[in-house]
Amino acid sequence: MLSRIRVVLSHTSHPGNIGAVARAMKTMGLDRLYLVNPKLFPHADATARASGADDVLAAAVVCPDMDTALQDCRLVVGASARTRSIPCPVIQPRECAGRVTAESAHGDVALLFGCEQSGLSNAEIDRCHYLVKIPTNPDYGSLNLAAAVQILCYETRVAHETESDAPASGHMPVSADEMERLYEHLEQALVELEFLDPQNPRQLMRRLRRLYNRARPDENEVNILRGILAAAQRAVKPGQ
Amino acid sequence: MLSRIRVVLSHTSHPGNIGAVARAMKTMGLDRLYLVNPKLFPHADATARASGADDVLAAAVVCPDMDTALQDCRLVVGASARTRSIPCPVIQPRECAGRVTAESAHGDVALLFGCEQSGLSNAEIDRCHYLVKIPTNPDYGSLNLAAAVQILCYETRVAHETESDAPASGHMPVSADEMERLYEHLEQALVELEFLDPQNPRQLMRRLRRLYNRARPDENEVNILRGILAAAQRAVKPGQ
Repeated sequence: MLSRIRVVLSHTSHPGNIGAVARAMKTMGLDRLYLVNPKLFPHADATARASGADDVLAAAVVCPDMDTALQDCRLVVGASARTRSIPCPVIQPRECAGRVTAESAHGDVALLFGCEQSGLSNAEIDRCHYLVKIPTNPDYGSLNLAAAVQILCYETRVAHETESDAPASGHMPVSADEMERLYEHLEQALVELEFLDPQNPRQLMRRLRRLYNRARPDENEVNILRGILAAAQRAVKPGQ
Repeated sequence: MLSRIRVVLSHTSHPGNIGAVARAMKTMGLDRLYLVNPKLFPHADATARASGADDVLAAAVVCPDMDTALQDCRLVVGASARTRSIPCPVIQPRECAGRVTAESAHGDVALLFGCEQSGLSNAEIDRCHYLVKIPTNPDYGSLNLAAAVQILCYETRVAHETESDAPASGHMPVSADEMERLYEHLEQALVELEFLDPQNPRQLMRRLRRLYNRARPDENEVNILRGILAAAQRAVKPGQ
């Protein structure tokens, strides 16, 4: 599914950055690079910085416009360093990776990066379903292009490996309803285990709620927890 | 607490990498750089690559040996690109960030990076409580030094921001050792409950580690969880 994810660089000024991006992508297993009107490409600086990722560079698709680069993409997420007053939802890299990974099961998706100087233009943002903002030092948010690509591709790889491990996509916490059902199950099991006295419950459930609310479990994790509770209940009442 | 985290670079060959590391650190709000026997430092290449992070570079502590660089550190995590047959637990960047953030509430911690060519020496690994391995493309794991620092510092910043968000004032997560004892107890109880098959453990413990590492329980919460496990164990083997 990583092969369904393209990295689109718009109007990149420095060819060295294109090479560094190719390397960052390849370390994380991504290999589809699209270049919209790069200032200089191909270029020796790009090749030098790509190191062993020259295959990604050689296969890069140079596009005359954004339409060509985004063709057939079901989901476009733009990388933005600034918070903008634009009606496009802003998400964190981890959520971005979850959405990109989930969507790549169904078709092509794009991570879109603007030019080094000014980032995404308004017209480019209009093409995005989400903007992703990498958390940075508020006093020095100067991530270079390849570093931003590295972080987003890293999160994508982690989500991809988690996905391969587990049917849950990225980290998608379950709904409040499902958490309530988990707490009901937990309380019931603790009563059966005689760990919780219904006549004198004290603060036990409140403390456990605080703990699990902090963890924000996803569906897979809730299923594991409920599986453990069911196994404990069977131990108390064998044959049920 | 980010100020309690030092990045230690051992025997770095290329001064440009030192500058790029300073920049990567500063973007994520880390500023304590320690250099053990750098080949060339200070150097114009370091300054050029540091961009606006020249303050981090200027404050870098050049150390004659590892003892000096790791002085007073409660926790040392080494970055390793390879899987090694060395009895040092290997963790993922996210778990690393959780442990580093938790421990930095109590004292200094170090992220340790070996030289560019060969990574950490065996003597350096002997100083580490954990090794952290960044997930990479199995066919091309060639992360450069600054990219590895960028990813680990990024995860640290995310963990730090999550921690700052947490409403629990005075929330003191237990130590890594106590978490290990919790996981041992949990694994033992799950085997006894026949929920975990030791012959076919699959990803169960890894998933549970991920969940509880996110929640970062305090001592009281760990005691509750272990109390529940003990109650379940008594249910399986009444009379013990």
